Amino acid sequence: MTPPFKIPLLQPDSRQGFLHLSLQDEDTPFSWSVQSYTLRGGLQDGVDVVEIYNGKLRLAVLPTRGMGIWKAQCGKRPLGWESPVKQPVHPAFINSQERGGLGWLKGFNEWFVRCGLNSMGAPGMDTVLDYSGNAVDVPLTLHGNIANIPAHAVELEVTETAILLRGEIDETMMFGPALRLKTEIRTDFASGSMTVTDTVTNLGNNPVEHQMLYHINYGAPLLEKGARLLAPFKQVAPRDARSAEGVGDFDHYGPPQVGFVEQAYYFELLGQRGSRETMALLRNAAGDQASLLRFSLNDFPCFTLWKNTAGSADGYVTGLEPATSYPNTRRFEREKGRVLVLGGGESRTTEIRIENLDTKTAVRSAESEIKKLQKRAKPKVSANPLAAYSNVS
Amino acid sequence: MTPPFKIPLLQPDSRQGFLHLSLQDEDTPFSWSVQSYTLRGGLQDGVDVVEIYNGKLRLAVLPTRGMGIWKAQCGKRPLGWESPVKQPVHPAFINSQERGGLGWLKGFNEWFVRCGLNSMGAPGMDTVLDYSGNAVDVPLTLHGNIANIPAHAVELEVTETAILLRGEIDETMMFGPALRLKTEIRTDFASGSMTVTDTVTNLGNNPVEHQMLYHINYGAPLLEKGARLLAPFKQVAPRDARSAEGVGDFDHYGPPQVGFVEQAYYFELLGQRGSRETMALLRNAAGDQASLLRFSLNDFPCFTLWKNTAGSADGYVTGLEPATSYPNTRRFEREKGRVLVLGGGESRTTEIRIENLDTKTAVRSAESEIKKLQKRAKPKVSANPLAAYSNVS
Amino acid sequence: MTPPFKIPLLQPDSRQGFLHLSLQDEDTPFSWSVQSYTLRGGLQDGVDVVEIYNGKLRLAVLPTRGMGIWKAQCGKRPLGWESPVKQPVHPAFINSQERGGLGWLKGFNEWFVRCGLNSMGAPGMDTVLDYSGNAVDVPLTLHGNIANIPAHAVELEVTETAILLRGEIDETMMFGPALRLKTEIRTDFASGSMTVTDTVTNLGNNPVEHQMLYHINYGAPLLEKGARLLAPFKQVAPRDARSAEGVGDFDHYGPPQVGFVEQAYYFELLGQRGSRETMALLRNAAGDQASLLRFSLNDFPCFTLWKNTAGSADGYVTGLEPATSYPNTRRFEREKGRVLVLGGGESRTTEIRIENLDTKTAVRSAESEIKKLQKRAKPKVSANPLAAYSNVS
Repeated sequence: MTPPFKIPLLQPDSRQGFLHLSLQDEDTPFSWSVQSYTLRGGLQDGVDVVEIYNGKLRLAVLPTRGMGIWKAQCGKRPLGWESPVKQPVHPAFINSQERGGLGWLKGFNEWFVRCGLNSMGAPGMDTVLDYSGNAVDVPLTLHGNIANIPAHAVELEVTETAILLRGEIDETMMFGPALRLKTEIRTDFASGSMTVTDTVTNLGNNPVEHQMLYHINYGAPLLEKGARLLAPFKQVAPRDARSAEGVGDFDHYGPPQVGFVEQAYYFELLGQRGSRETMALLRNAAGDQASLLRFSLNDFPCFTLWKNTAGSADGYVTGLEPATSYPNTRRFEREKGRVLVLGGGESRTTEIRIENLDTKTAVRSAESEIKKLQKRAKPKVSANPLAAYSNVS
Repeated sequence: MTPPFKIPLLQPDSRQGFLHLSLQDEDTPFSWSVQSYTLRGGLQDGVDVVEIYNGKLRLAVLPTRGMGIWKAQCGKRPLGWESPVKQPVHPAFINSQERGGLGWLKGFNEWFVRCGLNSMGAPGMDTVLDYSGNAVDVPLTLHGNIANIPAHAVELEVTETAILLRGEIDETMMFGPALRLKTEIRTDFASGSMTVTDTVTNLGNNPVEHQMLYHINYGAPLLEKGARLLAPFKQVAPRDARSAEGVGDFDHYGPPQVGFVEQAYYFELLGQRGSRETMALLRNAAGDQASLLRFSLNDFPCFTLWKNTAGSADGYVTGLEPATSYPNTRRFEREKGRVLVLGGGESRTTEIRIENLDTKTAVRSAESEIKKLQKRAKPKVSANPLAAYSNVS
Repeated sequence: MTPPFKIPLLQPDSRQGFLHLSLQDEDTPFSWSVQSYTLRGGLQDGVDVVEIYNGKLRLAVLPTRGMGIWKAQCGKRPLGWESPVKQPVHPAFINSQERGGLGWLKGFNEWFVRCGLNSMGAPGMDTVLDYSGNAVDVPLTLHGNIANIPAHAVELEVTETAILLRGEIDETMMFGPALRLKTEIRTDFASGSMTVTDTVTNLGNNPVEHQMLYHINYGAPLLEKGARLLAPFKQVAPRDARSAEGVGDFDHYGPPQVGFVEQAYYFELLGQRGSRETMALLRNAAGDQASLLRFSLNDFPCFTLWKNTAGSADGYVTGLEPATSYPNTRRFEREKGRVLVLGGGESRTTEIRIENLDTKTAVRSAESEIKKLQKRAKPKVSANPLAAYSNVS
């Protein structure tokens, strides 16, 4: 080469490839593809990505970040949101203890990210046992470890009807919790939906606490002025005084507003008799686009709605959060009896289904399902935080 | 490919290879091999492994984890143990400050792992100097840094009689301790033994404290109900009240017991006149399998026996731990005059030999060597922790 | 292979290559080269290096360490210094919270390293906002994050007259500062000089604090007994009592002295009318070698001279440090009104030029430029720390 010239060395889209499948064959009369590669450069250096496209839904799964789903797209509509953190961050660069236990926020930009496994929720002191069985107080960090642990045993399966991606993530230590998450993401060809089946196993001999929250996050275009959250509920209450300010509009969204401080609402949802299957729907203003969560209250009895309609550059985003408890400190949740315990060797399997709806008919149909469930109880909206849900002392 | 199919993407045995030697030639009339590769996926992503097989002994050395030895096998018998941490963990995922200074335990699963170089032992506050020479109190973390520092200058040598692997590990900082470990692992062809020769050098101009403990850990099958520890000693004392409960059986092992809380015993061993060479032997119940440590009390005056006969899934394991001091906090050990100081540029070379015995004859022979050394003093067993050894205040 | 043999596996110079340019053509009638590779083994594992040689000046830039410049060489004279930390350290191995917030020092060995972007200077508590807008006190760590964040968007440009290397580094988080540094290093063919142009942008919507200090460090041979610092100044004061001890010789250097405790001097420099361009010159004893910094006081109003003429193995080094403030705690600097604030979306572009001089004539010429600037005010040297500059309470 003779000057002048330019050579890109490390770019945000720099990758080292290790798999590319892209097929259209007789058995699947439409395009689908799976790509897997490793990102290079910046804080994303070394992050493995598996991109799945089923013919309609695209998912960029991050084995390196606990099998979270970074970006998704249904048809031409992006799901997910724009975080100030632009690229997926390799866990080696995250120190969860930073900034008073908020280091997790340096890697937070996924559409679908798990919080857990041994703890989740607000940072705060809690008592654990050391190697001699002595109780010691240690600071738990925001939302636990699982989003920052890479998966091993990642496997792709393609059947005649669906694409499945599996992975295992170990949150283990000697003399401490030893929990393993096995996850399966399944999406049928040409579908806008996916089902995540998670099994958490206590690998140890002794009982261990377990918490899990699915932080499923939406920005524009689904989130917009006039967008709404619909879910069948018995009770909803603001998390804190700041959230109480917005309780009159807890299920409506405003436009991006610079300086907006987050609000959170704790729900007691209603489910079907027996299965306790429930729903939570985020729809746009026109009611022709929506994302619908389906899960069982047996699996996830606590639902949190997170509203952060801040300026676009600061993260205009709302989170729909099915969970085993509310995202308060683990100590508080334990006092309220909401922290699960898995016995030695015990497993727990749960399922969450996300359906991305793109017609008025589909949205209306989901809304009427929700209305039907709502008939089981009169919805109560508490103007103030409730002592049963929040630490209001 | 036409569906259905399955493709493993990242598996626990995923590797990127960079060396494979496997020979049987005229000079070495038996198989031996050396393999070197980098693990991929999960918390092991990026861990370099060097697997050595001398015809009898197999060693999986981890340059990335301070040249620790993850797994070993003598003939068909595995050495090492089963930790709740299943794979070797890349140091980038370890935060030693986690969980009150116990983050080291998130990577603890090796057969042979060093603790040190500037500190080791229990976590606790200690006073260090900052860049202006001011004394500041900082929390030291469990067992120091050396197990979580990758080696550079790794070199393999094969001679007519032996396989040697060398590496250097730098535990250095500006305005703080600058210590370098040079290690050599040597194993003769067809032998069940290995010798580890370590040289620690103070790279700086000023005196610096130095601690080292070899945490050599055994689980089943060598560890079993009826297994025993034999060593020539003048004095042994339990570390704490919990260990005092088991002092009557300090040298015998029970079966795995769910909920067992660890016990530790501090030994003052007896060595040969002059060389102060000593021994510690872990043998199975039948007395036909054993692992024998040989070292000099000049190098390692303090010996700790760690008994953690917990449930199999929690880590059924015992540790034989030759060291420069006992694994209390560094502050306590300093008060007792047991923390070494290396002058500017000073080096210290030590040796540990491990012989894996697999016949009754060999085990009996080692036992009679130990009995002979024991004749030099009457063994005293203290029922309670001793103020000279433990912080019993 | 038949024994005996030796094979290096991971060496300090182990690399995986990805680019090598080396040209001498008609347009550039001298050799120049650019190499880019990734280091392997030890704490340097995964560090990307871009080596630039313009025919006279060599720069080893580290994209992985925030585009710092590890080593430099002008002709046959090395710039930079010998730290106890021997190799470039991958940020994944740095925990800035270690040792009371001094973890940064485990990676400190560059010639040219930035401190910032949201904070720099001494570790200390400061108040930040959490996700709910509540003020919380958190410990800031020495010199901030920027040196331990890898660059993405790294690009090499070669023009007819110069080699340019660009990179972007994101210091961002959700609910916290989101700052991006775009840097360009430009060096003309056959020149001993380079120009660093940095643009820092607040990617968020809300105002955010910003600090930056360039820690430009020199050891032997430029630093030696009789070496001197020359700069036009209105006022200089020792940082603390220890520095006051050396104030009589603040601009002269002694030989390496084992046990020497660092001294720092805070300058109010004089600049040209209007542009406020100023200079700082480090020259050797003979006055035939020097390194000259040029920058504007509009960009960097505060200049610190760091003298650490300790023993050669401990880091015999001096730092010339143009900055937005003095390197005290951010809380102190805020009280003094010296912490910048960037509004939402706001950018700030600055420039630093370093000229490496290698003739008596060139050094004399720089000295007379400085003398000329000095005429603008009488230089005051305070014998004691000043409350305006240092926390002397």
